[in-house]
Amino acid sequence: MQKKYVPGILMTLFILSLIVPSTASSESEGTDSYRAFFQTIPDRVDNPDNQLNSEKLKLGTMLFIDPRLSRSGLFSCNTCHNLTTGGVDNLPTSIGHGWKSGSRNAPTVYNAALHFTQFWDGRAKDVEEQAQGPVLNPVEMAASKELVLDRINTIPEYVALFQKAFPGEKNPVTYENVARAIGAFERTLMTPSRFDRFLDGDKNALSSDERKGLDLVVSKGCIACHRGPAMGGESFQKFNYGDDMGRYEITKNEVDRKVFKVASWRNVALTYPYFHDGKVWSLDEAVRIMAEKQLNTKLTDDEVKYIVSFLNSLTGEMAKIDLPVLPPSTDKTPKPDRN
Amino acid sequence: MQKKYVPGILMTLFILSLIVPSTASSESEGTDSYRAFFQTIPDRVDNPDNQLNSEKLKLGTMLFIDPRLSRSGLFSCNTCHNLTTGGVDNLPTSIGHGWKSGSRNAPTVYNAALHFTQFWDGRAKDVEEQAQGPVLNPVEMAASKELVLDRINTIPEYVALFQKAFPGEKNPVTYENVARAIGAFERTLMTPSRFDRFLDGDKNALSSDERKGLDLVVSKGCIACHRGPAMGGESFQKFNYGDDMGRYEITKNEVDRKVFKVASWRNVALTYPYFHDGKVWSLDEAVRIMAEKQLNTKLTDDEVKYIVSFLNSLTGEMAKIDLPVLPPSTDKTPKPDRN
Repeated sequence: MQKKYVPGILMTLFILSLIVPSTASSESEGTDSYRAFFQTIPDRVDNPDNQLNSEKLKLGTMLFIDPRLSRSGLFSCNTCHNLTTGGVDNLPTSIGHGWKSGSRNAPTVYNAALHFTQFWDGRAKDVEEQAQGPVLNPVEMAASKELVLDRINTIPEYVALFQKAFPGEKNPVTYENVARAIGAFERTLMTPSRFDRFLDGDKNALSSDERKGLDLVVSKGCIACHRGPAMGGESFQKFNYGDDMGRYEITKNEVDRKVFKVASWRNVALTYPYFHDGKVWSLDEAVRIMAEKQLNTKLTDDEVKYIVSFLNSLTGEMAKIDLPVLPPSTDKTPKPDRN
Repeated sequence: MQKKYVPGILMTLFILSLIVPSTASSESEGTDSYRAFFQTIPDRVDNPDNQLNSEKLKLGTMLFIDPRLSRSGLFSCNTCHNLTTGGVDNLPTSIGHGWKSGSRNAPTVYNAALHFTQFWDGRAKDVEEQAQGPVLNPVEMAASKELVLDRINTIPEYVALFQKAFPGEKNPVTYENVARAIGAFERTLMTPSRFDRFLDGDKNALSSDERKGLDLVVSKGCIACHRGPAMGGESFQKFNYGDDMGRYEITKNEVDRKVFKVASWRNVALTYPYFHDGKVWSLDEAVRIMAEKQLNTKLTDDEVKYIVSFLNSLTGEMAKIDLPVLPPSTDKTPKPDRN
């Protein structure tokens, strides 16, 4: 279900021709009309090729926070996709192995399973494929598949848990299954917010300022791209900002220059700094830049205020996670290597 | 309540003269006799100068896992004292700011409040004083007091929580109170184990091998130093191993050369690698080295096996911790600085 991008403005005009609730009338209307653009968040996002079971969920939670998936033993998935800080590390670009860094901002793991593709440039098709990347990236966790499997295979509790999580598989400890378990966990990381209650008909779930912001993101056309249950993550779009060539680096198609996956608005108030380079810290500024670059619109201070107010209402309830106790290594487990 | 160290062998002889359950008889005896050396673990360790309240506990939990206490925004207390891996990072020495490292192994935070003094060299009197150290250490979290306070003071939810946690204080956001909140949390991190059930009279709580190990640590004299509720952490002892001068670096007293605080046995199976330099990965080897260096005893393979079996019974139940959601920074909050 790869969706190609459509130039933002064209899409906007098309959608606005279908339904434009005016600011005045929508204040007193029900919440149904907004469902043309936005959907409530599901409890989880299932993958028929990676069926959830309780042991897989437990295993995935453990692997997500286990620093032994990194060469140094310092970094876990949770280091850069920190579950306590909106699923990100709030750094422009993450600090990785040897204090090195990549060039793009770490996106949030919360609601990531809702996106139609993974990474800023869409180079992984789902969270299961995505999870295989950072573990091996030399400026991130800097491990190898062999190292990860050697570590897991020398920890009996992990081996037993893989057997339960992937029943019927002869050798369940595979690198793909490591990523499948992590992906299964990530598919449960949904964050319902007050806006979902609003969409479900509770008109009082949003304040008057938030409602004004909601009507602005509709009438200004932001919803051309920030739509669906994730309010983003459904298409690629050109973003003429910075030097990063985006999806072009993958496809080498001219049309993909500076094309990126649209970020999700869910929890956007927590996921600063913004954009693929993580260089914009203020949500106000990010909103202004997007309006100018993508919609050729200069917002007034009041418009920015209302939109940011609405975006804050999208901060959701984080899944309640009991910190697991990780099984200890054994004498045979490959040691951490900081070099 | 500073306790000075007593040469290990003298202490051993003194204690053994008081009570020596023989291996043979203790197998069929009750568990009372062991209470001369060991005590069950309390629910928490109170500090009259740092009264616990629920808001302080909540605040301390949040600060403990908040990476904004480090200059880079990468490290929290939990990075090196990881609650999911026995309260340590399982590295020889921790990786800190700029990929640098100190020279000593990070001790576990679990049960640390039971220790009579903090750090390997006892340079902090309690967990509240200890918590002030790593935040400022240039090879650890590399922050400054001013940076930490500026970060907290620009996060309204934190300021409100400090007011509740330290009621009646005019300006509760102080560096000392940051450490007090963290210390209050740490004072709850007790890990009762099967051995506590045994001490409480449940003879079946230990296996036959574990009982043999227990009798060996008594009869060999390990309990001269590894005693009390933490099974260690009650005295300084000379440990003629490696080049680290230990407590001498603090006191400059000749008598303190290579003198260190005795490590706790609680969760020792999880807190590898061992000793103050973190260079010994195998618990078997650590046990052999201690017997040779401290008790001038060469253990048989069976003796090592039984002792290690007993030490494994000291792996306790980790406190159940719900991952908190940290309050977001604001536009005024000082940014992370990786340099």
